[in-house]
Amino acid sequence: MGSPSAMQMLIKTFHKYSGKEGDKYTLSRGELKELLLEELGSYLGSSKDNEAVEKVMNDLDANNDGEVDFTEFIILMGALTVACNDFFLEYKTDEKPKDGESAQKKD
Amino acid sequence: MGSPSAMQMLIKTFHKYSGKEGDKYTLSRGELKELLLEELGSYLGSSKDNEAVEKVMNDLDANNDGEVDFTEFIILMGALTVACNDFFLEYKTDEKPKDGESAQKKD
Repeated sequence: MGSPSAMQMLIKTFHKYSGKEGDKYTLSRGELKELLLEELGSYLGSSKDNEAVEKVMNDLDANNDGEVDFTEFIILMGALTVACNDFFLEYKTDEKPKDGESAQKKD
Repeated sequence: MGSPSAMQMLIKTFHKYSGKEGDKYTLSRGELKELLLEELGSYLGSSKDNEAVEKVMNDLDANNDGEVDFTEFIILMGALTVACNDFFLEYKTDEKPKDGESAQKKD
């Protein structure tokens, strides 16, 4: 297990939704919304409302063609993963007793 | 399963190696080499020799501090995932009989 299967999972997830309508290799707004709600609902908080999806869509759609291609999708996933890692480090640092080994995290 | 577990897997893989020596939150050259060989050896072909690892290290170490932090690692994984997806699409397009449904892949 590990990185290779993480990469394969990201590819599979993208194609699971991109293949539903229109261009099989890009996510339409509808396909992106479905992916966000089903796969990342818990991460995106109020992704239930259109506004959040619209914002993600506009942020992602770097080339403004109304579609999200695989590279744009990976940029989103990368940003979310970095945010998760930061959250994980904050949580770990708070957990340790103050006089314990302090996390060597650069501030 | 899906994107969230892919994200968690990437975080776990990074910390599995970054925690071994020195700064627990960055990969030293030695830790990066171990990660590349053990996790991505099949993807990086001749990663066995130092030269390939040196090249990846230099490409990754965007801020030139001799260490690879989580964001730099995610950029590598993103690039590899896009390359894998491109390979997957090329393979799928070749597979289809010429007169069959042509893949709607923008050239």
